[in-house]
Amino acid sequence: MRINISQAVLFAAPIVVLWAPGYSAEHPGLLLSTEDVEYIRQNEHESPAFSRVLDEFRTELDLYFVTGPDVPEPVDAGGGYSHETHKRNGIAIHDAGVVYQLTGEDVYADHASQLLLSYAEIYPELGNHPQSRGSNPGRLFWQNLNESVWLTYAIQGFDAIHDTLSASERDRIVNNLLRPMADFLSAGSPDTFDRIHNHGTWAVAAVGMTGYALDDEDYVRKALYGLNGDGNSGFIRQIDLLFSPDGYYSEGPYYQRYAMMPFLLFARSIEANNPELNIFEYREGILLKAIYACIDLSYAGLFFPLNDAIKDKGLDTVELRYGISMAYALTGDSSLLSIAGMQSSYVLNGDGFRMALARDRGDTLPFDYRSRLFRDGPKGTQGALAVLRSGDYSNEQALVLKATSQGMGHGHFDKLGLLFYDNGNEILTDYGAARFLNVEQKNGGRYLPENETWAKQSIAHNALVVDETSHFNGRLSLAEQANPEILFFDSADEIQIASASMEDAYEDTSFNRTVALLNNLATDNPVMIDVLNASSPSEHRYDMPVHFSGHIVDTSHSLESRISNLRPLGAANGYQHLWLRASAEVPAGEKFAVTWLTGNRFYTYTVIAQHDMEVFFTELGANDPLFNLRREQALVFRVNGASSTRFVSVVEPHGEYNGAEEYTLNSAGSIEDVRFLREDGADVLSLQTGDGSQTIVALSHDADEMTSHTASLKGRSYSWNGFYALFNEERE
Amino acid sequence: MRINISQAVLFAAPIVVLWAPGYSAEHPGLLLSTEDVEYIRQNEHESPAFSRVLDEFRTELDLYFVTGPDVPEPVDAGGGYSHETHKRNGIAIHDAGVVYQLTGEDVYADHASQLLLSYAEIYPELGNHPQSRGSNPGRLFWQNLNESVWLTYAIQGFDAIHDTLSASERDRIVNNLLRPMADFLSAGSPDTFDRIHNHGTWAVAAVGMTGYALDDEDYVRKALYGLNGDGNSGFIRQIDLLFSPDGYYSEGPYYQRYAMMPFLLFARSIEANNPELNIFEYREGILLKAIYACIDLSYAGLFFPLNDAIKDKGLDTVELRYGISMAYALTGDSSLLSIAGMQSSYVLNGDGFRMALARDRGDTLPFDYRSRLFRDGPKGTQGALAVLRSGDYSNEQALVLKATSQGMGHGHFDKLGLLFYDNGNEILTDYGAARFLNVEQKNGGRYLPENETWAKQSIAHNALVVDETSHFNGRLSLAEQANPEILFFDSADEIQIASASMEDAYEDTSFNRTVALLNNLATDNPVMIDVLNASSPSEHRYDMPVHFSGHIVDTSHSLESRISNLRPLGAANGYQHLWLRASAEVPAGEKFAVTWLTGNRFYTYTVIAQHDMEVFFTELGANDPLFNLRREQALVFRVNGASSTRFVSVVEPHGEYNGAEEYTLNSAGSIEDVRFLREDGADVLSLQTGDGSQTIVALSHDADEMTSHTASLKGRSYSWNGFYALFNEERE
Repeated sequence: MRINISQAVLFAAPIVVLWAPGYSAEHPGLLLSTEDVEYIRQNEHESPAFSRVLDEFRTELDLYFVTGPDVPEPVDAGGGYSHETHKRNGIAIHDAGVVYQLTGEDVYADHASQLLLSYAEIYPELGNHPQSRGSNPGRLFWQNLNESVWLTYAIQGFDAIHDTLSASERDRIVNNLLRPMADFLSAGSPDTFDRIHNHGTWAVAAVGMTGYALDDEDYVRKALYGLNGDGNSGFIRQIDLLFSPDGYYSEGPYYQRYAMMPFLLFARSIEANNPELNIFEYREGILLKAIYACIDLSYAGLFFPLNDAIKDKGLDTVELRYGISMAYALTGDSSLLSIAGMQSSYVLNGDGFRMALARDRGDTLPFDYRSRLFRDGPKGTQGALAVLRSGDYSNEQALVLKATSQGMGHGHFDKLGLLFYDNGNEILTDYGAARFLNVEQKNGGRYLPENETWAKQSIAHNALVVDETSHFNGRLSLAEQANPEILFFDSADEIQIASASMEDAYEDTSFNRTVALLNNLATDNPVMIDVLNASSPSEHRYDMPVHFSGHIVDTSHSLESRISNLRPLGAANGYQHLWLRASAEVPAGEKFAVTWLTGNRFYTYTVIAQHDMEVFFTELGANDPLFNLRREQALVFRVNGASSTRFVSVVEPHGEYNGAEEYTLNSAGSIEDVRFLREDGADVLSLQTGDGSQTIVALSHDADEMTSHTASLKGRSYSWNGFYALFNEERE
Repeated sequence: MRINISQAVLFAAPIVVLWAPGYSAEHPGLLLSTEDVEYIRQNEHESPAFSRVLDEFRTELDLYFVTGPDVPEPVDAGGGYSHETHKRNGIAIHDAGVVYQLTGEDVYADHASQLLLSYAEIYPELGNHPQSRGSNPGRLFWQNLNESVWLTYAIQGFDAIHDTLSASERDRIVNNLLRPMADFLSAGSPDTFDRIHNHGTWAVAAVGMTGYALDDEDYVRKALYGLNGDGNSGFIRQIDLLFSPDGYYSEGPYYQRYAMMPFLLFARSIEANNPELNIFEYREGILLKAIYACIDLSYAGLFFPLNDAIKDKGLDTVELRYGISMAYALTGDSSLLSIAGMQSSYVLNGDGFRMALARDRGDTLPFDYRSRLFRDGPKGTQGALAVLRSGDYSNEQALVLKATSQGMGHGHFDKLGLLFYDNGNEILTDYGAARFLNVEQKNGGRYLPENETWAKQSIAHNALVVDETSHFNGRLSLAEQANPEILFFDSADEIQIASASMEDAYEDTSFNRTVALLNNLATDNPVMIDVLNASSPSEHRYDMPVHFSGHIVDTSHSLESRISNLRPLGAANGYQHLWLRASAEVPAGEKFAVTWLTGNRFYTYTVIAQHDMEVFFTELGANDPLFNLRREQALVFRVNGASSTRFVSVVEPHGEYNGAEEYTLNSAGSIEDVRFLREDGADVLSLQTGDGSQTIVALSHDADEMTSHTASLKGRSYSWNGFYALFNEERE
C-alpha cells in the first residue's frame, strides 16, 4: 500500500514519498487493473458490443502474428517501412497483452513477449537514428516523440504479460529494453523531457508509466516533477500550463485531441497507483474539463476546424475513445454514453467495458450541448473561444466566435473569425488545413504549400481583412504577442450573445464583433446576427469574406457576372487563389441579400451597406496548378476608402427543400426588413418579419450592468441597462 | 360475387362481363379492403413501425383540419394557392378516410365528408379552368392530369367513408362531384383518356377506380378497354405499350417512378374487384417487373439519373412505397423488405401493414442486386439499358451503359453514355436535369434554360462527342428515329460485360462501346474497362468526356494549368459552360493516368492514346450568370483529325483514406501496366498488376459463339470462341 498524503502537500512541495518501502505493484496496473480483468471476464456476456470489439481485436492480432516478429533495423523516417513497422509493433504489443488478460489465452501473451524480446535484442546496440535531425533524436525512430509514444504502448503490453514471463525473460526485457529506453527518454533527452510542450508530455507519460510498471519511484518522480524534481517541469507543470482554466488547448480542438492522449494515459495510471494524488481533481478537475471541451468544440461529431485541422477528425478517434470512457468511469455521467454512440469502437480496459455495458443496458442520455465560453491561456487571460448553441439536438445551431490567442505555429490569422452550423451542416465554413494527411502524392502527406498561401491567410476565413493583408501581416512572432479581448458573453432564453475586440492585428485599425443567435424571431429557426465594427484614423479598404456552403438560389441585386473570362480577385495574401465569378454594387444605406440552399434548408444572408459597398462572388482554385485546393466559394463584401465602417449581417435559416417528396416550403424566408442605426455609441438593429412584428436588438458595447443607455428608432425611444437588450413589438 | 372468366378470353376479346347483375361492392374495396381493415385493427400492436406511421398521419390530419374546409375558387396554375390547396385537399380526403377505417374514429370520416361535400357544392358550376391551355383543360386544375390524380385520391377517401354517409350526402357527392368528374375525365376528355401516355394512364385509373367504388361497370369497362371498348386504348393497351418486356419505361427510372403510380393504384383495385383478370400476371407479370426494375435501376437508394432526373429521387418516394409493399404482398419476396428499410414510411393499407409487420418480425432478407439487361421499347427492340454489378452489397459496384431509345422530350443526347458507382458513391457521374424542383426563385421551379444548353447535350455526359456537336444535332425528331443496338451481354463469375453500337447519332460516324467489370484482377476491388471505337470515312474531332466526382490527387503527365485566366472550352452545344482549367498533351501510344479521391477510396483512370491526344481538365460554370449549374468537373480526352479512333480506358478503385484514424493504404493502385492492340478486328487489352501477373481481355465484337478468333500479344497467341475471353497469367 502506498502512503496517504494530502493533495495540497503534494503539489505545494513535490519532494514527497510516493512509494512505501518494499512496495511491489500488482500486474496489470496501468490503464487495466487486476480488478478490471476480473470484472470484465465475469460480466463480458452482458455487453455484446464489448465482446464484438474484443473479437475484432483478436481477429486483427491473429492476422498480424501469422508471421513471426518483424523487427527491422531502424533506417526510415516517418512513413517509411521500418518506421511504420515499429509503430505497428508497439501497438501490437499493447493489444496482445490486453487481449491475453481479457481472454486468458496464452498465445497472445506469447506474441507480446516474442516481440518484446526481439526489441530487447536490438535496442542496446542502437545509437541515434540515422534520419535524426535537430535536437530531439530517437533511436528506434527518427525523433524521440515516436519513441515515447511507442513506450506508452509497449509498457502496457509488458505490464499485462508481466506474470507470464520467466525471471530471465523479464530481466532481459527490463534491462535491455525498458530501462534503457526510459533512461534515454528522461535523463538522456532532457530538452524534450523537461519541455512544457506536447512532446514533453509524451516523454513524461512514457517514463512515468514505466516507473509504475517497474516499481521504480525515481522514474515516477521525475515524470511528475521534472528531472531535477523541483516541479518547474514534469507532468504537473504541464497540466498547469498547457490547458486554459476551461480546458481549452491553444492550438484548437484538432490538436487538443492529439495533445491530450499522453495526459489521459499517464493520469489514469497515476489514479491507479497513487490515488491519493487525486490527479483528476487537480486544478479543479482540469483533465476532465479538457475531455468535455473536446465534445463542446465539435458539431455533428466533428471538431470545429480551427487553425491547422483535418476536417475528418472528431469524436470517433482513439484519443476520444480513451477520453470519453475515462470520463464516464470517473463521473458516471450518462450523457457521455451518447458520445460513445458516435464512436465505432471501445477501448479494451475497465473504462471501455463499463461504458459498453452501460450503453448495452440502455443507460444513454443525450449530451447537453450548451453555449459556453472557453477562455484561452494558462490563466485564462489570452482571449477566448465563444461557442453559442441554440435549438434542440436534432436541428441545433452552433455559432463560434474565434477570439483566442494565435495557438503557435499551427495557428491561422483569423482574429474574430466566425463559424456557423445549422441543421447538421456547415453553413459559414472554415477551410481548415490544406493537407491530404498521409496521401503520398500530395506533398508526401505533409502540409501543402497552399496551407501557407491560402489556408492560414485571413481572407480564407470569415474574418475582417484590411487592405488585402492578413492579420499581423501573417507573421507568427507578431501574432503571438497580441490577444483579442472578450467584451461580453451571455446565454439567455431568447438570445445567446458574445462580443470581442481586437486591437493589434493591424497597425492602425482596431475592430470588434458582436454575434448572437435569436430564438423566437423568425418562423422556422433561430436567426444569427453579426455586427462587425472597424475603426481607424486613416482610410482603408475593408473586406469581409463570407465562406459558405450551398447553392446560390437568389440575390437581391442584379449581378455583373464573368461568364467567359475569369481572373483572380487579387494578387497576394490568399486573394490570388480566388476566382472572381460575379460582382454587384450596393449603394450606402441599401441592403444586399443572397439566398442559398444547403442540404434541405435555405439560408438568407442579408448585409447592410454603411458605405458604398462592392460584393464579390468568388470561387477557390486560382493559382492552384496541381489541384491542391478544394473547390469552395465565398462572398467578399468590400468597402473602399473609409476610415471606419461596419458590416451588419443577419442570417436566417428557413424553409425546406424536399426533392424526394417534391415540395418546397418558405424558400423566401420570413424576415422582411432589417434596419440599423448607431446612436450615442449604441448599435440598434431592427428585424421585421412577415407578420409585421418587430424585434429590436440594442447593443451598448458596455458590459457594465449598472449603466443605462437610450436610443431612438422610428420615433420610439428604447432604454436599457448593460451590454444589450431585446425589444419585441407586435404589429401595430 | 363477380363472374369468373379466363384471362385469355378477357384480353383477347375485351367485350366481356365484368359485373354480375345487381352486384354491389363492399366498402372499402379499392387499395384498402374490409379484410385488410379487420386484420390491421386486430394485429396493429404487433407492428410498432406501422403504429408510428399511423400516428404520424393522425397528427398531420389533426393539424390540417384545425380549420374548416378550405375549397377556394380554382384560379391558379401549378404552384399557386388554389392549385396547391386542391392538391392537398385531395390527399387529405384520402388520408382521413383511411385513418377513419383504421382507427374507427368518426371525426376523420367527418373531415373527409365535409371536404367532399364542399367540393360537391362547387363542382357542378365549374367550367374550364381559367388558366387552361392546350387540349387538356381541367376544371379544378389548369390541366386535367391534376384532376385525374385528385380523383384517384378522393375516390379512395369516399370509398373509405362510404358507409358513414347518409343517403342524401352520398347522392350529393356521387351526383354532383364524382360522376361529373369521371364523366368529364372520360367521355369529356377523349384526347387524354384514350391516349397511350402517362396522362391517359392517370385518367383511366381515376375513372376505373370510380367505377369500382360506384358499382358502375361502364366506367370500369371504358377504363380497361377505351371509350369505344375496342381495346385499342385503355388500361390494358397502356400496359402493352408503355413498358418494355423487361419492365423498363423509355424515359428512364426517374419518370418511370412517376408513370407507374396510376398503374399500381388501378391494378391493385382491379385485383381486389376482378381478381379473375389476374392483372398482375398479365404480359408475364409486367407490372411486377416494372416495380423490380425501379429497384434495379437505383444505387444506394437513388435512381440512376438518366435523362431529365432530379437526383434526390429514389426508392424512398410515395410511388415506391406503394409499389414495394404491393409487390411484397403479391409475391412474399422477403428481399423486398430490405428495400422497405430504405423507406421512411408505410402506406396505410393491407400491403403496407403486411410489410411493416414482416419487417418488425425480422423477416428481412438482403435484395439480390444482379447484372441485368433492360430491353427498351414495347417489343424490346429499341436498344437496352445494361446494368452491370459486382461485389457484395456493402461495397458493390454498378456500371450502367445507356443504349436505350431517346425517351421522348425528357431524353438526353447521350447514346452509349456511362455511369459508374463504387463504394456508395457516384464515380463517373451524370448531371441529371438542370432544375431546382419547386424552388420558385429558380425559374419558378421549372426546368432551367441550362437544361437545354447543358444537361441534355452530349458533352454533359460520359458519351462520345464528334466535332463538338451533340448526337442528332440535339434534335428530338431525329433522335426518336434511331436506336442503339445491343451487341452482347454476359454476367459470369470473373466478368460482367456489355457491348452496344450506335450508327445514326452522327451523319457519317458510327461508334460502339464495350464495358466490363473484372473481378479478381486488382488487389482491392473489381476494375472497370471501357473500349470505345469510333469510325468514319472522313476526319473528325473526337471528344470523350469523363465526368467524375472526387479530388484530383495525381496525374501521369505534367499539366499546363490556367492559373490566372480561365476561358470556356468551346462556344456551343454545352462546351460554352466548361471552364478549361488545365490541359496535357499525350503522344500516340502513351498512357495517360489520373488518380482522384472520392469518399475514402482512390480511383485511377488510365486511358491509352491511339492517336496524339489532348486532355482537358474542365469545371462547370462558364456562361452561367445566375449560378444555375452545380460546380462539377470533367476530363475531356480529345483526338483531332482522325477518321477512326478508339479510347481504351481502365478504372481501378483502390486503397483507403482514413482521416480520422490517420492512415492511408494503397494510394497508387495495383495496376502497373495497360497495353492494347487490335488484330484481325479483335481488341486485346492486357492489364499487369504489381505482383507481375497479367490479365488479357480479348474482344472479337462477334457474338457468334461458334466463331473462333486468334490474336497475338508479346509473342504469345491467344485463341477463343465467341465475343470475349479472359486469360490470366501468373508472373513467369
